[in-house]
Amino acid sequence: FRDKSENNDVAGVVTGLAWTSVGGDILFIESILSKGKGTLSITGNLGTVMKESATIALQYIKSNAEEFGINPEILEKYNVHIHVPEGATPKDGPSAGITMLTSLVSSYTQRKVKNKLAMTGEITLRGKVLPVGGIKEKILAAKRANIKEIILCKDNEKDILEIKESYLKGLTFNYVTDMKQVIELALTKQKVTNAKKLI
Amino acid sequence: FRDKSENNDVAGVVTGLAWTSVGGDILFIESILSKGKGTLSITGNLGTVMKESATIALQYIKSNAEEFGINPEILEKYNVHIHVPEGATPKDGPSAGITMLTSLVSSYTQRKVKNKLAMTGEITLRGKVLPVGGIKEKILAAKRANIKEIILCKDNEKDILEIKESYLKGLTFNYVTDMKQVIELALTKQKVTNAKKLI
Amino acid sequence: FRDKSENNDVAGVVTGLAWTSVGGDILFIESILSKGKGTLSITGNLGTVMKESATIALQYIKSNAEEFGINPEILEKYNVHIHVPEGATPKDGPSAGITMLTSLVSSYTQRKVKNKLAMTGEITLRGKVLPVGGIKEKILAAKRANIKEIILCKDNEKDILEIKESYLKGLTFNYVTDMKQVIELALTKQKVTNAKKLI
Amino acid sequence: FRDKSENNDVAGVVTGLAWTSVGGDILFIESILSKGKGTLSITGNLGTVMKESATIALQYIKSNAEEFGINPEILEKYNVHIHVPEGATPKDGPSAGITMLTSLVSSYTQRKVKNKLAMTGEITLRGKVLPVGGIKEKILAAKRANIKEIILCKDNEKDILEIKESYLKGLTFNYVTDMKQVIELALTKQKVTNAKKLI
Amino acid sequence: FRDKSENNDVAGVVTGLAWTSVGGDILFIESILSKGKGTLSITGNLGTVMKESATIALQYIKSNAEEFGINPEILEKYNVHIHVPEGATPKDGPSAGITMLTSLVSSYTQRKVKNKLAMTGEITLRGKVLPVGGIKEKILAAKRANIKEIILCKDNEKDILEIKESYLKGLTFNYVTDMKQVIELALTKQKVTNAKKLI
Amino acid sequence: FRDKSENNDVAGVVTGLAWTSVGGDILFIESILSKGKGTLSITGNLGTVMKESATIALQYIKSNAEEFGINPEILEKYNVHIHVPEGATPKDGPSAGITMLTSLVSSYTQRKVKNKLAMTGEITLRGKVLPVGGIKEKILAAKRANIKEIILCKDNEKDILEIKESYLKGLTFNYVTDMKQVIELALTKQKVTNAKKLI
Ligand SMILES: [Ca+2]
Ligand SMILES: [Ca+2]
Ligand SMILES: [Ca+2]
Ligand SMILES: [Ca+2]
Ligand SMILES: [Ca+2]
Ligand SMILES: [Ca+2]
Ligand SMILES: [Ca+2]
Ligand SMILES: [Ca+2]
Ligand SMILES: [Ca+2]
Ligand SMILES: [Ca+2]
Ligand SMILES: [Ca+2]
Ligand SMILES: [Ca+2]
Repeated sequence: FRDKSENNDVAGVVTGLAWTSVGGDILFIESILSKGKGTLSITGNLGTVMKESATIALQYIKSNAEEFGINPEILEKYNVHIHVPEGATPKDGPSAGITMLTSLVSSYTQRKVKNKLAMTGEITLRGKVLPVGGIKEKILAAKRANIKEIILCKDNEKDILEIKESYLKGLTFNYVTDMKQVIELALTKQKVTNAKKLI
Repeated sequence: FRDKSENNDVAGVVTGLAWTSVGGDILFIESILSKGKGTLSITGNLGTVMKESATIALQYIKSNAEEFGINPEILEKYNVHIHVPEGATPKDGPSAGITMLTSLVSSYTQRKVKNKLAMTGEITLRGKVLPVGGIKEKILAAKRANIKEIILCKDNEKDILEIKESYLKGLTFNYVTDMKQVIELALTKQKVTNAKKLI
Repeated sequence: FRDKSENNDVAGVVTGLAWTSVGGDILFIESILSKGKGTLSITGNLGTVMKESATIALQYIKSNAEEFGINPEILEKYNVHIHVPEGATPKDGPSAGITMLTSLVSSYTQRKVKNKLAMTGEITLRGKVLPVGGIKEKILAAKRANIKEIILCKDNEKDILEIKESYLKGLTFNYVTDMKQVIELALTKQKVTNAKKLI
Repeated sequence: FRDKSENNDVAGVVTGLAWTSVGGDILFIESILSKGKGTLSITGNLGTVMKESATIALQYIKSNAEEFGINPEILEKYNVHIHVPEGATPKDGPSAGITMLTSLVSSYTQRKVKNKLAMTGEITLRGKVLPVGGIKEKILAAKRANIKEIILCKDNEKDILEIKESYLKGLTFNYVTDMKQVIELALTKQKVTNAKKLI
Repeated sequence: FRDKSENNDVAGVVTGLAWTSVGGDILFIESILSKGKGTLSITGNLGTVMKESATIALQYIKSNAEEFGINPEILEKYNVHIHVPEGATPKDGPSAGITMLTSLVSSYTQRKVKNKLAMTGEITLRGKVLPVGGIKEKILAAKRANIKEIILCKDNEKDILEIKESYLKGLTFNYVTDMKQVIELALTKQKVTNAKKLI
Repeated sequence: FRDKSENNDVAGVVTGLAWTSVGGDILFIESILSKGKGTLSITGNLGTVMKESATIALQYIKSNAEEFGINPEILEKYNVHIHVPEGATPKDGPSAGITMLTSLVSSYTQRKVKNKLAMTGEITLRGKVLPVGGIKEKILAAKRANIKEIILCKDNEKDILEIKESYLKGLTFNYVTDMKQVIELALTKQKVTNAKKLI
């Protein structure tokens, strides 16, 4: 199944771009909170590197909670679960890093994700966004899925410049170097309808 | 052994549809509560993806307890065990997701499952139901097992339209997009006879 | 070594029927309690599915303690260990389910197991007994071991009807559909001599 | 290296008989207590089945402490570690069961093990001793190692009767059916010199 | 992607030198603290030996906290996470030991790492720095990445002497034998801008 | 790299003798204490049997603390970490047993290890030292590394007698049967300079 962009009325659901053996595709990163002790769990038929991305994102958030406007008590009193549909497809690699970060910050703040936005990029503990591969295939998949705006690492700009211009029509690109730029670009100031009341 | 639909006097027992190397079959998802600390355990010779479905279902319920009419204290004070007979058959895949969700909600509320109903569909943390494969074989198995009503993802409607009409006689189809629709369709308002008194 | 039926003066020891590459055999399921926190441990060179049977049996007992006349406090304050001799033989499969259930109920109640009785059948969380394979070989092994009475799933009756009558002489068959019938048939009202004083 | 019988001045050291690819040998089972919470650990390059024997022995002792003259509080307040030299040799199988049982009872009671005694036999949770293989090779190894007395399962008596009589000169055989007989035969009433003061 | 030296305004980010199948490269070791109980977690698609380096570094720091000017309470009340980008590349070996040590000490003290510095060397619990392989390839990679100063084990000096002098122009070498020398050379007295307030 | 004997001013560092595919070598066993709950951790690219040696050594020390002059409270209130450089070399086998025992006792007592001493021998829970293989290669490596004194199992004396006398010049041999002899021979009465103040 080829996925389509979805509306953005649920906190924690962010669109990523994946590069698979059969070409590019979009994927959704979903996260959800429940009362607990701050543990992280993760599902979605994921390989080790992709699971590590979730850990890196959460560790970065824990160490920089205030800058993301997150009450540190929420991090301690809620468990978070991350899921990446679709279970039948094995997934791996570091490129969902910024998508996971965005999903988590949206869940912890209940802020709305910007509409028709997709992203791809590796994250680091020092807050940098790193470039990833498969950019051309990912961009074509984004267009097919009705995406209008894309967040990429600044170092991936050269990959976009190599794509025929006609393919890029209707897409806006945001090039970032820093994880905080991602959050500023990806999350609106608004909370989602029916925002969860945390703590 | 080919299974048959069963009566619905036990909470937590829900009929799913499976697609195996030897064709379609029905399977039962069973869940049961016991006093504890809210842990989830699972048996039935299941692969990783199918085990993940149980985790996703429980996480979704924990985050949306009130909407399912579940007292959150029950989630914290009872362990839940999910089993999928028959132990000799290895099982995997995401398609039992909505069946597991329904089983858990039935156990936590002690509400009766609708009679002669079967279902198949993947679940997501954002509450969507996703389409699954093997629809034709699953439908034939449902008929053989005396099932009368089926819940499927809206995106699987096209697979039903490709099946010869005569095969579908006597079956009612419910197409859903949302996990809450599944529960409304699958559980009656009635509690099971001898409902467990929780808390 | 070919095993023989044993006397029944120890709680928790129940005779099962196994189907191996060299034909049928009887096996013993043994369980024992010790003060603790309600944990389950298991030994006997067992495969995953056979270990899962022990978990299913214990979960069912925990959820239905009162119906088996078990004080729920005993389940919380005693650890239970299940062993299946003989360690040199790898064993697997779901067919020891009812034997494990009977062993556990005998240990928790200290009720005596009926003499010269053997059984085979898969268990489910909804309390049903499911049919199993290898019935002919198992019955022949039971006779060799001096067993007089056998508990089987009702759905295995057809397998017995296919066996030459002369082979069945001296054996009584009990066909069951429900796990509670197993316990009624398998355990006497009497406690074992030197019954352990629990709590 | 071919091992020799050792003196018996240390609690918890018991001589077993092993059957390896290069013939029979004696081996030592050693156990030792340290203050803790009743956990069991085990070393010696052992396979799963041999490790399970240690679990079975300890579970049996926990359930029958009083009959072995063991203060149950000692079981809860001391950790026990079992080691089987020599680390370079992988070892497996259930036949060290009675040797492990004897080692543990000696450690928990600080009773002296009988001098120049060796043993081999599988144990069960119901207290029975089961027969084991490789008897001829084990007996020859015992003689070479200067052993004078041997404990075997009653069902292994037939294996001894098949050995040429001259090979058996100087050896006394004790055939047992029950784990309590093993302890009566193997442990003296005396404590070891420098017995550890427990609790 | 070929990495470049980065500015040093984030605590816990240290440049190491790696030797891969496609030649030398620089890599970054990143560490970050968050409130917790002193646990260590680690990501970056790392093999066992490289993970062990992180454990050794932390154990050494725990045992020598005062000499590194670290308040032991910080070690107990903060979790530390180490990450080694880039997730798509598997990494292993002991040579990042001194880089990990430096990263951890920087995080625990919030001291600034010296600019345009890289290092490679194995660490030991007794505080020694051990020599490592691939020195020539690592040095060439350091030059390409605009590194100006390098820390190496004294025993690797001979490897530098074998490199053509022109390749070494613009590089300063510091040869060490002791882990405390590494910290003195690598960390400035200054704290990073926006130093985290610990405890 | 060929290692050399080191000075002995750090507690817990002891020289062992290893036998590898490329001949004999010396290796160092290092241990270090940090405040904690008495846990043991171990690194150095070690196989199962070598890790087991560390467990055996610690269990023996816990059970015989007073005889080694160790305050039992130190065992409960400090974690101990054992490391065996060099991480790039996989290591296994039981022959580092006495070296690990000596390292641990040195760390727990802060007593100085004798200078230019090396050792090799397997340990047991009953306190015996067992013989090991590769003696000739190990002795030659010890000479090359400037070792002057060696501790071996009494049963390895025959292996020394087979070595050409000229090879042995300058080496003193201590043959032991008992783990307590090892400690008496290996540790001086003196504490190391800068001995850690424990508790
Ligand atoms: Ca897709
Ligand atoms: Ca992505
Ligand atoms: Ca079936
Ligand atoms: Ca299904
Ligand atoms: Ca048998
Ligand atoms: Ca059975
Ligand atoms: Ca031997
Ligand atoms: Ca034995
Ligand atoms: Ca790179
Ligand atoms: Ca490095
Ligand atoms: Ca070396
Ligand atoms: Ca050694």
